[in-house]
Amino acid sequence: MATTSLPFETVRPTPDGRGLVILDQTRLPEDEVEYTLSDRESMAEAIRLLRVRGAPLLGVFGAHALAALASDRAARGERDVARLRGAFDDDVAVLAATRPTAVNLGRALQRMRTSLDGWSDDHPGADTDATAAALRGFAREIHDEDQRMCEAIGTHALELLPTSSDPTTVLTHCNAGALATGGIGTALSPLYLAHARGRALRVFADETRPLLQGARLTAWELARAGIAVTVLTDGMAGALLSSTRVDAILVGADRIAANGDVANKIGTYGLAVLAHRHGVPFYVLAPTTTLDPDCPTGADIPIEQRREVEVRSGMGRTTVPAEAGVWNPAFDVTPAELVTAWITDEGVRHSWP
Amino acid sequence: MATTSLPFETVRPTPDGRGLVILDQTRLPEDEVEYTLSDRESMAEAIRLLRVRGAPLLGVFGAHALAALASDRAARGERDVARLRGAFDDDVAVLAATRPTAVNLGRALQRMRTSLDGWSDDHPGADTDATAAALRGFAREIHDEDQRMCEAIGTHALELLPTSSDPTTVLTHCNAGALATGGIGTALSPLYLAHARGRALRVFADETRPLLQGARLTAWELARAGIAVTVLTDGMAGALLSSTRVDAILVGADRIAANGDVANKIGTYGLAVLAHRHGVPFYVLAPTTTLDPDCPTGADIPIEQRREVEVRSGMGRTTVPAEAGVWNPAFDVTPAELVTAWITDEGVRHSWP
Repeated sequence: MATTSLPFETVRPTPDGRGLVILDQTRLPEDEVEYTLSDRESMAEAIRLLRVRGAPLLGVFGAHALAALASDRAARGERDVARLRGAFDDDVAVLAATRPTAVNLGRALQRMRTSLDGWSDDHPGADTDATAAALRGFAREIHDEDQRMCEAIGTHALELLPTSSDPTTVLTHCNAGALATGGIGTALSPLYLAHARGRALRVFADETRPLLQGARLTAWELARAGIAVTVLTDGMAGALLSSTRVDAILVGADRIAANGDVANKIGTYGLAVLAHRHGVPFYVLAPTTTLDPDCPTGADIPIEQRREVEVRSGMGRTTVPAEAGVWNPAFDVTPAELVTAWITDEGVRHSWP
Repeated sequence: MATTSLPFETVRPTPDGRGLVILDQTRLPEDEVEYTLSDRESMAEAIRLLRVRGAPLLGVFGAHALAALASDRAARGERDVARLRGAFDDDVAVLAATRPTAVNLGRALQRMRTSLDGWSDDHPGADTDATAAALRGFAREIHDEDQRMCEAIGTHALELLPTSSDPTTVLTHCNAGALATGGIGTALSPLYLAHARGRALRVFADETRPLLQGARLTAWELARAGIAVTVLTDGMAGALLSSTRVDAILVGADRIAANGDVANKIGTYGLAVLAHRHGVPFYVLAPTTTLDPDCPTGADIPIEQRREVEVRSGMGRTTVPAEAGVWNPAFDVTPAELVTAWITDEGVRHSWP
């Protein structure tokens, strides 16, 4: 499958394969700055400082990072395969420790190790250059898979968007876009496909307090790709649905329970309730890896409470008096009954289970 | 009726009656600063810069301002009643022009003029000192009425809050509190009355983007009065109702149409929809002056679109890319069917009309 091209890349290897070039997401939306990472500490720091973020992207980034570090060692003259392998294991440990709860990152790092083990068994006499080249191949494979996953979600979801409305008008929340993946995103992927086919689009993006991923990231990536996007505050979604025809609401998912309940960025549930009242289709778009069969219902999904400072002074100014408390759950749970369809890379589910 | 005292005052005359002392609301929630205003320009500026804000408070402030300016002229030796009256008319014009759409402000200024006309007819030989004293009396009357209006709303609403729950838990939006009035507020008035009676309370306050009146003002005034308050972002209300027993949602109103539809701060409608789903009573608390019999339904209420900058960089940092549009309606409309009861200073209405 050919992949859809965007005018920016979240991560790519340098031409010599010894480093990584990333789009520094902490500088968005004001500045579009690429940042070259050529050593382990700067790569680990890029994760810690959220220069790269988004579950799928962290996996792709981690894989490329392992390949680049091994390639750099080989290029600097490392000829001992055992020492290269030892350094590789250290790299895995250091990168995995940057965000211990990032499942995709840990999974990708582990997969690189397993792939290397298998390849080494099959190539007992390979030198360090060949080993590094093999790692670059594995990383490219993980990246390609991520791109195909995005394209597949988008292709399935595109069939659900009405072709009759002009422009096709959607509302989204947070950022489940290209900036969170190595491809064209999850929730936003059908929009990039529709845009590439010349369909007129109008996207409304909730700003998504407290961290404003909708305003900062979703609005940036859509505008950068030439898609008309309008930002509203989270409390305006009801007024939008009351006053404007919206064809669909598209959101991502952090976890989908066995009964179809969806945990996603805080604010998603309120949108689903509004969509239900206004008869607007509410679509959840996420990779199959998001499905968690070990979690019977949404009530079993643990909800992370984040630091108060995000609400108290998220934008650098104190907006909540010190004497007041703050509640800052990162996610909410949307019951399956409010979801019109779940779209994964494997297809569309209109009912659950 | 005795009025409930709070540990702060939004506006009061100076002891000599020649100036005004205000709580500077632009410095909240970080600093509690009183500001003395002794000339017309600083009074007009206080309105323009939102040092004083809130529809009822602007009316009270405007009345006190007219009285203080006349008192200052008389005290500085003005003996010509006609000149005092000419300056008074100038004061009305200058203050009215600060916020031309603020109905309560214009109404209070006009009422001061009408009262002065009637009083002058009855006291043809009165000197400037007596005239200024009469104006101070009219201003006090408007202030007292505002306080009684707040107390009446609170008294009626208090009967709707369950006494069995401990603590009584409510959710509110924006600021329809003491800081918006010359008394104990509208939507927050039953909370001050309940607190004064020793009832345990727990208040959740939506931060209310874009201008954060909930975080900055509601949280400040409740905490300052010793009432436990917790701030959440607007998108968290759904998660709150899913996870916590909330006894009632209390909101104010900017305008109530003849059919009971309610225009209030953007985000109110989404709360009403969530309240309906969760079976939580949704109460609208507002003075009778908010009822607009000339507006048949909510659809007839004009919705002010405010400046994009409030969403683009409301807290001093750019959070929306320049290429993206912004939608910034100030109010939304909640249909009467979602309102459990309307509480005014005249009583409780459980159905409409």
